[in-house]
Amino acid sequence: LAGANPALISVDWGTSSFRAYLADAEGLALDVIPEGKGALSLQAGEHEPYLNEKLAAWRGAHPDLPVIASGMVGARQGWIEAPYAASPAGANEIAAATIEAPGGVRILPGVSHVDARGAPDVMRGEETQILGADIDEGVVVLPGTHSKWARIVGRRIVAFATYMTGEVFAVLKTHSVLGRMMATPSEGAETQGFLKGVDASVALKNPGDLLHAAFMARTYGLFGEMDGADLAEYLSGLLIGAEILSGAEGVRRATVIATAGLARRYVAAGARLGVRLEPASDNCATLGQIAVARRLGLMD
Amino acid sequence: LAGANPALISVDWGTSSFRAYLADAEGLALDVIPEGKGALSLQAGEHEPYLNEKLAAWRGAHPDLPVIASGMVGARQGWIEAPYAASPAGANEIAAATIEAPGGVRILPGVSHVDARGAPDVMRGEETQILGADIDEGVVVLPGTHSKWARIVGRRIVAFATYMTGEVFAVLKTHSVLGRMMATPSEGAETQGFLKGVDASVALKNPGDLLHAAFMARTYGLFGEMDGADLAEYLSGLLIGAEILSGAEGVRRATVIATAGLARRYVAAGARLGVRLEPASDNCATLGQIAVARRLGLMD
Repeated sequence: LAGANPALISVDWGTSSFRAYLADAEGLALDVIPEGKGALSLQAGEHEPYLNEKLAAWRGAHPDLPVIASGMVGARQGWIEAPYAASPAGANEIAAATIEAPGGVRILPGVSHVDARGAPDVMRGEETQILGADIDEGVVVLPGTHSKWARIVGRRIVAFATYMTGEVFAVLKTHSVLGRMMATPSEGAETQGFLKGVDASVALKNPGDLLHAAFMARTYGLFGEMDGADLAEYLSGLLIGAEILSGAEGVRRATVIATAGLARRYVAAGARLGVRLEPASDNCATLGQIAVARRLGLMD
Repeated sequence: LAGANPALISVDWGTSSFRAYLADAEGLALDVIPEGKGALSLQAGEHEPYLNEKLAAWRGAHPDLPVIASGMVGARQGWIEAPYAASPAGANEIAAATIEAPGGVRILPGVSHVDARGAPDVMRGEETQILGADIDEGVVVLPGTHSKWARIVGRRIVAFATYMTGEVFAVLKTHSVLGRMMATPSEGAETQGFLKGVDASVALKNPGDLLHAAFMARTYGLFGEMDGADLAEYLSGLLIGAEILSGAEGVRRATVIATAGLARRYVAAGARLGVRLEPASDNCATLGQIAVARRLGLMD
């Protein structure tokens, strides 16, 4: 690290996760605190002392660095609420809605969107990663418990939609009849079951067909046509495929921001569906925070 | 009951429910045993003595009556397995696959179906109710945890599909983030929330849109646009609406076999969607068993 110049302390503080980086001006991590308590697992009043303790060494060595946080730490149930910036929102709008917490910590807001039918949607944390992906125009997906698909125009988030893909998979596997015959999928390459699920998503015609096709994650087992791991993979492929066909409607390519394993599943499903998903760099959160910090005059 | 002639003992024995009727030749209940242990809550070897005990008084008074059972009692995990009759299946095919259990009890089989893509589906219990609904040609829905939509041609079930509507609602309400703000819907008339959910189902374009529209059962609450009961009603209306639009594709009317409360919800949703759902009589299971008993020569 000789010659490296720390430029900010970047805190990615989610519902149940904490990760902090001592980063240079290009977003490169010079040091990392890989884990900690999630923002929603701390009680009111506990966030400030907890953060001070976690960052003490870095702040002692570099007392003048800006500290920028994003994620559920800015939710009402988090440390201090940073109200949503309304879409369309880019770095300027997000910077304008950034709040200052005790100790000079900046907390970025989430972004809200109301669609043409008047239905509201929200993200918190993903907007920062989207800024960091540095997209002029296009579509970006952040897969997960609540996947987000966002449309970017003029470097601003103009629309987005949440898909409950990961959570629907988890509750069906854990709590519904579908889970009874399922085994945990292997961490390796996507299986036949996964690709069969993706293919089944293509055959869906009506939205309600999804409520039917999911049941095949039981009947393929009852009829001895899939083993337990493939049953889980089938359901995963079905839901991810349906999500991609909806989220990527009208486009043939999109940027995917995810951990390597999850990104690989989406890339494989997308390829099957004619949608090219291109992984973004893995430090998008820090890069997005830098974009905001510059607009706030906290970094050169 | 003077003058009434008992003609059969009709047992509707589901996964977690037991109901028996002393019925006349028209399917009219002369006496009822309203509850008991479900077929899957008994261990192997317990079904015969349990049934003997439940039916002792009726059998003592009417020793020659046929005893006909349908439902999960005939599943592999039930009393004795009655293997599925393959579609197309009507009274003749179901009678041919009916098995005789100890004590002369007849257990009706379920029905299986493989669709054009090779995906298997199953029902067990519903086929008997469908027979009892006495439909020459048309579509019939049996709403519930796992709703069934069946196509009837020439008085036989030629195709059907399971929709996990009731179970998806239950696991999302109980185990997902959606349930956090939900209250239990009232038992009264369907609310604004329910109709808003049904209307949202019409606006779905891609199957994956369902994974997005479900999330509004949270955001409408976050934005103060729905109370807890309406959030649950919205999700119910969304899922039921999507199910109807898929199950009733290509038809404008169908028969609904359900308890009064559930039938009313489906009728209301169907009316909103241009699908006329007409409730069947409430003794379809007994009527279907009679149709089979006649083919087996057990009744005149």
